[in-house]
Amino acid sequence: MMITYQEALESVLRTTLDLGLEKVPLVESVHRILAEDIKADRDFPPFNRATKDGIALNYEGIAQGVSIFKIDGEVSAGSPRQALVNTNACLEIMTGAVLPENTDTVIMYEHITVADGVASIQKEVKRGQNIHLQGSDLEEGTVILKSGIKIRAAEIAILATVGKVNVLVYRVPKVCTVATGNELVSVAATPAPHQIRMSNSIMLQAALKGEQISATTVHIADDKVALKIALQTAIGVNDVLLLSGGVSRGKYDYLPEVLEELGVQKIFHKVAQQPGKPFWFGIHRNQKTVVFSFPGNPVSTFVNYYVYFIPWLYTSWCLEFPQKYVRLANDYKNPTSLTKFIPVTTVQELDGLVATFVNQNGSGDMVSLNKAHGFVCLAPEKETFKAGTLVPFTETV
Amino acid sequence: MMITYQEALESVLRTTLDLGLEKVPLVESVHRILAEDIKADRDFPPFNRATKDGIALNYEGIAQGVSIFKIDGEVSAGSPRQALVNTNACLEIMTGAVLPENTDTVIMYEHITVADGVASIQKEVKRGQNIHLQGSDLEEGTVILKSGIKIRAAEIAILATVGKVNVLVYRVPKVCTVATGNELVSVAATPAPHQIRMSNSIMLQAALKGEQISATTVHIADDKVALKIALQTAIGVNDVLLLSGGVSRGKYDYLPEVLEELGVQKIFHKVAQQPGKPFWFGIHRNQKTVVFSFPGNPVSTFVNYYVYFIPWLYTSWCLEFPQKYVRLANDYKNPTSLTKFIPVTTVQELDGLVATFVNQNGSGDMVSLNKAHGFVCLAPEKETFKAGTLVPFTETV
Repeated sequence: MMITYQEALESVLRTTLDLGLEKVPLVESVHRILAEDIKADRDFPPFNRATKDGIALNYEGIAQGVSIFKIDGEVSAGSPRQALVNTNACLEIMTGAVLPENTDTVIMYEHITVADGVASIQKEVKRGQNIHLQGSDLEEGTVILKSGIKIRAAEIAILATVGKVNVLVYRVPKVCTVATGNELVSVAATPAPHQIRMSNSIMLQAALKGEQISATTVHIADDKVALKIALQTAIGVNDVLLLSGGVSRGKYDYLPEVLEELGVQKIFHKVAQQPGKPFWFGIHRNQKTVVFSFPGNPVSTFVNYYVYFIPWLYTSWCLEFPQKYVRLANDYKNPTSLTKFIPVTTVQELDGLVATFVNQNGSGDMVSLNKAHGFVCLAPEKETFKAGTLVPFTETV
Repeated sequence: MMITYQEALESVLRTTLDLGLEKVPLVESVHRILAEDIKADRDFPPFNRATKDGIALNYEGIAQGVSIFKIDGEVSAGSPRQALVNTNACLEIMTGAVLPENTDTVIMYEHITVADGVASIQKEVKRGQNIHLQGSDLEEGTVILKSGIKIRAAEIAILATVGKVNVLVYRVPKVCTVATGNELVSVAATPAPHQIRMSNSIMLQAALKGEQISATTVHIADDKVALKIALQTAIGVNDVLLLSGGVSRGKYDYLPEVLEELGVQKIFHKVAQQPGKPFWFGIHRNQKTVVFSFPGNPVSTFVNYYVYFIPWLYTSWCLEFPQKYVRLANDYKNPTSLTKFIPVTTVQELDGLVATFVNQNGSGDMVSLNKAHGFVCLAPEKETFKAGTLVPFTETV
């Protein structure tokens, strides 16, 4: 009896790793997962800050009906705080400058005229205008960024502002992608008629780059001794192995047997899904290396990477993986006992993203993946998914 | 009279660069833009390929009512093509193997029993089943991938399969992010009360990493001579400068003047938008360096990067930049003459993504960006955008 996709996913998510933390230089922390709370090291902004170029003055003069102010000096951004000594005068001020003592209002150049060192006000003035008040965004000591978020450019700006030269982030796992199969030759080789170039392990490496993971890769022949030696080494130095091929019922599909001999405990083998049914999943008893052993068909490996490895990775990082949804453009019947993953193209309609099935020629047909924007997940034993139904969608970016 | 956001964007998109092409190693080509058509170097698949582990036989026997076949040998993936000599017998076959001569049908192990070297068929068989026919996905010579697409993991698999060790892609521009302003100190420094750490140029560097661009960065004081020397150098070695600060009306906002003196032709200055109004845009008359000079407020720089630079980049790569849309959760009035860009959070609802405005404390408030998933673009002179209206959305990832 095969387990369901939901059961398999739950098993995978119960087998996450504590990957630990590491410090990386600020610019390299982008797209990583923050592992510390970030507090404001001072008020935001740290001083009463002019937000326009013009003049700074004390509003009392305006309140008393004065509209002409002598310019007594000038304050630029990056200068220490100055003071307006004569409160009937004003100071020129630049955006970003510290508001001088005895001033409380900034008037932009566009609203004054200047002649002979005197500014004449041409427009109504509000007390306190054009000032970004110290601490008005937030106060010193406030937590600005919480541990567990993905760092984007917007967060880099905050980290820079509070002086984080190095940032504590969740470690990325050490991953090795393993290709098995005697029919595989390298990308640079010219294959004989019965051979093909290896593509799955390189596809996985490319996908992992999007998660900031630089994976190593290895190709192993369908030979039990060679498999055992190479896998033992790989288990010793990696957190995760992503294998493709060698888990079906073929005579040379030694992988399940070899993995168990090496101390990798099988958690499950085979899932009621299409494609990707012969998926084998386990964890090394001592070294805790997690082994995702995907079937060798390109579409199977591709789908299983997205529906199992990616949620595993995000859960290991204590991060929620956001599920997207799309609306089906056409009816679909799935009376089988298998969860179906089907490539789709999507278009933006008034009621959200709408997904159209991509014609597919079985799980060996990698060309169907190039036409697709992602794939939908269709639950088993469902007579009809009506057009318009909202279903889970995995975008393949 | 200021130009509108639409006019500014059209100007920017008329000022794209021909960045040229370059070859990069396969794995590094992911997330780059393909610059050549990719043809199938042979049929996909290149031979009639077994898709199950089991036995291969000639259907004629089945048609004549035979259900017991002697096993005459074995065919594994990666072996040259074999032949079934006695058509009343069968050959064991593994997934991925070449279908032997004189066979036309594969029966999986699950549907046979094997005893004493003889396979007994337990289930109905269809002629031609479990074979991925040569050329059935596509024929040799067919264009599989078209120039001008973004390379994802799915495309890497194709490029590997056809033997592309190096891939021709659009070159990424050489970009320098330039911070100006005397009030700025480095991230590692402890700022005096009137100073702040620089964040805009680092934020831009981080955002550019997402486009596979490794930008350099430079900080220049508000000094006309220093600006001129540093910018002349930067113009000489870069395709694009992204500046922040120094384009308002302040006394030390030398940038427009210095840029024109250096031979950078102004295309426009100031756009009827909020934030980001004092945006200055130009191109060097001879060297064709494109200069995006953003206002120094963090939110202004951030928004202008996304609404001008990113579409410029994709257009330079001859790629369409897909516009996303969201539905407003609340009414919004914009009777002003300014296009408004407002940070929002989004949630998936039944009728698509719904956007809620993030509270914001002016264009200096970078903290509002951390709370947001992106920002919406709201056209000017519109009495009310009703809740539920679909509006353009920029996701900030």
